[in-house]
Amino acid sequence: MQKLKLDEIKRKWKRKDLISLEQLDRSEIETILLIAKDFKKKLKQNEPIPSLMGHTAVALMVEPSTRTRVSFEIAAQKLEISFLSIDYKSSSIQKGESLKDTVKNLEALGIDYLIIRHPAAGSPYFLSKLLQISVINGGDGAHEHPTQGLLDLMTVEEHFGTVSGLNILIVGDILHSRVARSTFWALSKYGAKVRFVGPKTMLPVYFRDFGAEISYDLDQSLPDADCIVLLRIQHERQKTELFPSLNEYIASYGLTKQRLAKCKKDVLIMHPGPVERGVEIESELADSEKSAILRQVENGLAVRMAVYYLLSRNKAT
Amino acid sequence: MQKLKLDEIKRKWKRKDLISLEQLDRSEIETILLIAKDFKKKLKQNEPIPSLMGHTAVALMVEPSTRTRVSFEIAAQKLEISFLSIDYKSSSIQKGESLKDTVKNLEALGIDYLIIRHPAAGSPYFLSKLLQISVINGGDGAHEHPTQGLLDLMTVEEHFGTVSGLNILIVGDILHSRVARSTFWALSKYGAKVRFVGPKTMLPVYFRDFGAEISYDLDQSLPDADCIVLLRIQHERQKTELFPSLNEYIASYGLTKQRLAKCKKDVLIMHPGPVERGVEIESELADSEKSAILRQVENGLAVRMAVYYLLSRNKAT
Amino acid sequence: MQKLKLDEIKRKWKRKDLISLEQLDRSEIETILLIAKDFKKKLKQNEPIPSLMGHTAVALMVEPSTRTRVSFEIAAQKLEISFLSIDYKSSSIQKGESLKDTVKNLEALGIDYLIIRHPAAGSPYFLSKLLQISVINGGDGAHEHPTQGLLDLMTVEEHFGTVSGLNILIVGDILHSRVARSTFWALSKYGAKVRFVGPKTMLPVYFRDFGAEISYDLDQSLPDADCIVLLRIQHERQKTELFPSLNEYIASYGLTKQRLAKCKKDVLIMHPGPVERGVEIESELADSEKSAILRQVENGLAVRMAVYYLLSRNKAT
Repeated sequence: MQKLKLDEIKRKWKRKDLISLEQLDRSEIETILLIAKDFKKKLKQNEPIPSLMGHTAVALMVEPSTRTRVSFEIAAQKLEISFLSIDYKSSSIQKGESLKDTVKNLEALGIDYLIIRHPAAGSPYFLSKLLQISVINGGDGAHEHPTQGLLDLMTVEEHFGTVSGLNILIVGDILHSRVARSTFWALSKYGAKVRFVGPKTMLPVYFRDFGAEISYDLDQSLPDADCIVLLRIQHERQKTELFPSLNEYIASYGLTKQRLAKCKKDVLIMHPGPVERGVEIESELADSEKSAILRQVENGLAVRMAVYYLLSRNKAT
Repeated sequence: MQKLKLDEIKRKWKRKDLISLEQLDRSEIETILLIAKDFKKKLKQNEPIPSLMGHTAVALMVEPSTRTRVSFEIAAQKLEISFLSIDYKSSSIQKGESLKDTVKNLEALGIDYLIIRHPAAGSPYFLSKLLQISVINGGDGAHEHPTQGLLDLMTVEEHFGTVSGLNILIVGDILHSRVARSTFWALSKYGAKVRFVGPKTMLPVYFRDFGAEISYDLDQSLPDADCIVLLRIQHERQKTELFPSLNEYIASYGLTKQRLAKCKKDVLIMHPGPVERGVEIESELADSEKSAILRQVENGLAVRMAVYYLLSRNKAT
Repeated sequence: MQKLKLDEIKRKWKRKDLISLEQLDRSEIETILLIAKDFKKKLKQNEPIPSLMGHTAVALMVEPSTRTRVSFEIAAQKLEISFLSIDYKSSSIQKGESLKDTVKNLEALGIDYLIIRHPAAGSPYFLSKLLQISVINGGDGAHEHPTQGLLDLMTVEEHFGTVSGLNILIVGDILHSRVARSTFWALSKYGAKVRFVGPKTMLPVYFRDFGAEISYDLDQSLPDADCIVLLRIQHERQKTELFPSLNEYIASYGLTKQRLAKCKKDVLIMHPGPVERGVEIESELADSEKSAILRQVENGLAVRMAVYYLLSRNKAT
């Protein structure tokens, strides 16, 4: 019965690719979460998962990405999808091959999913137009990281029951963060009020155009917040230092016990990881009951399984 | 019925290894292609593929090789062969272990196939004598790359129906190319007339000893050609520059629209990849209908599946 | 029948992790070897192996380790365990993430086994306390490498029938060797008399505290030895050179034909690999009938399968 329902949902799914959350309707996001929650329950209760045996996923990681790759790899294994990854350092791109040729080659090898992480914003969209197979954006520059946005949404909804009307802070290096954008789209489409918080050098005024609030003052923003999403300082993306010193960043934007005292009692703390303890967040808080960091990771697995499932092509097995 | 036939063909197969095409009889090559074509059809029509579950293949890549590794890996997955790869940079060879000891260790771990890429010509042959398991040459120095030769042959035969009597040009860096040698052997054993074309510094006169024609002038060679196989300049193998500049190479040996105008209407363009667009071939031509580049990749999958199948040992599953 | 017995043995197994052989009782070691021998027999005779399908093992290699990773990977494949490895160079540890957070993330992804290789002695123990999943020590600094000790024990027992009373020499760089420690614990718990042999700079007197004999003179130790375990010079662990030159090391501690002439006729030569031929051992001896080096590798596969099996959690499949 449950199984028939999954089939039905999948039959109605129209998209070939997962490129950005900005372009998805709320109803599409709901479909992904519906399946993700079902898979999460099945995993917990050791119930059988649908098999996508005969499908092959390739992760082409043109930037380093262990966390996302591992999550996609385990999600593939749960569905019996064959998975292989290509490291940016050893790929033929190094021998002068164009990205287009690399992916056209992979398609000719009969793969079903291309998971792409790439420093250039828009590259997954570009590839999705070239290929008949499903392209999954695993993070493109500072543009989007849609599965991260989905797992953040799933975690918030799971915790609060509903997302509409919640006050969400996304704090830190907004400028360089694809997570900030994808999480913003996911949560705001569900009716949350999202406020970006960070130093001016990491939060240009044009972020208002997203329809988000903007604040340079974390302390002022804390009392109303239902959920605080902390972002990692992306040292590797910054061409110049965007704040005088790490200690000054911590002084203004690090989540400390003092700051937590200003928050609502049941505030939820999230972080996409990897966490730099002592910078974005005091170590103790990362391990506290208010932290949903590991639930985010767990939900990421379910979300990625749901994405594979919805994008899968029907194959005899 | 079809299945019984595969079994029968396999029972008659005698070789343990695939080292070079020079040493194969035409009838052996025909057997591999027969199975490759059958597998290609089964993949297209979503028919069941024989399972080699319980077999393990290890790719020992002592030179970088993403394309070949990925093709062998997906081919293994289609046959339910467990696959793992060992990167030359992280292998124990770095700790002073001899190649012999590395492979003897792998054999002791109960693997069934060793795919070896190695800068030293002859190393797969050397290993095949040491090991009882199947050794598959994935490219040895400038010697051979037999699965590439087989997929080139398959692509030519598929396109023209027959290979005998066709005029084939292999153009470029012949000296450093194992593809040139393997593709030469495959096509000439099927009765094609192969001509090597390239600058003198990349095409020593002793290549005549292969029984091939030699030419330093691409333009003269074009009008008769049925098929042109372009090779990549192997910058990484050249100890000194073998031509004054890339532009001079392009001026004499790059396939351009002007040059294509001199060719037969139905000339077939092939390239083992990775393609450097604008060097060996004008970008537009690589994407034209005359190009078989992606069919080569597709056939490579089927050829590698056929090789695994023929070399497999019978195992209870 | 056989299968029921495996189930029974597993039900009685209490430990979650495999951290060190020092902490195991002899009866626990016997249990692992019992299953390893059963699996080895099943592999040889092509009998069905129990399936652990639905389990996932992750190898987190914070130091380079191809040999151990490949052995664990093939062992996993034999049991239908999904396996993936994370390279220390590309892991999030590079982005400032703590080891604790890295493994907590992996646990949140629903894996079952964490195989950890780490330069810091004690790190697998530390992780085993943090995690509910099984931690397998794949080598921690100069502390232990328990599966290596188990496979050495299995090889000695297989060869001699019994271990009790045998004279075992462990020769070489004792100071930096986790193999020396694990193999010592395994063999001495079975009643062997173990003597560490090496230059003073690699064999501090406190090694007596293990309950082992100590000798700086290989030649004196040879006549009584039943088995000689040679260790690799761990050039990469030595901060300063611990002997004047490689030739002087060879002159005093290399196993040569002259030295072999002083040994018992049926002495057994072992080496955990990778072997540096011409240093620890003359090349010819490594290939002689007295050498158990490849049997060690083969037994390593069976031992690692047994460890996976005993630590597995019961799952519906």
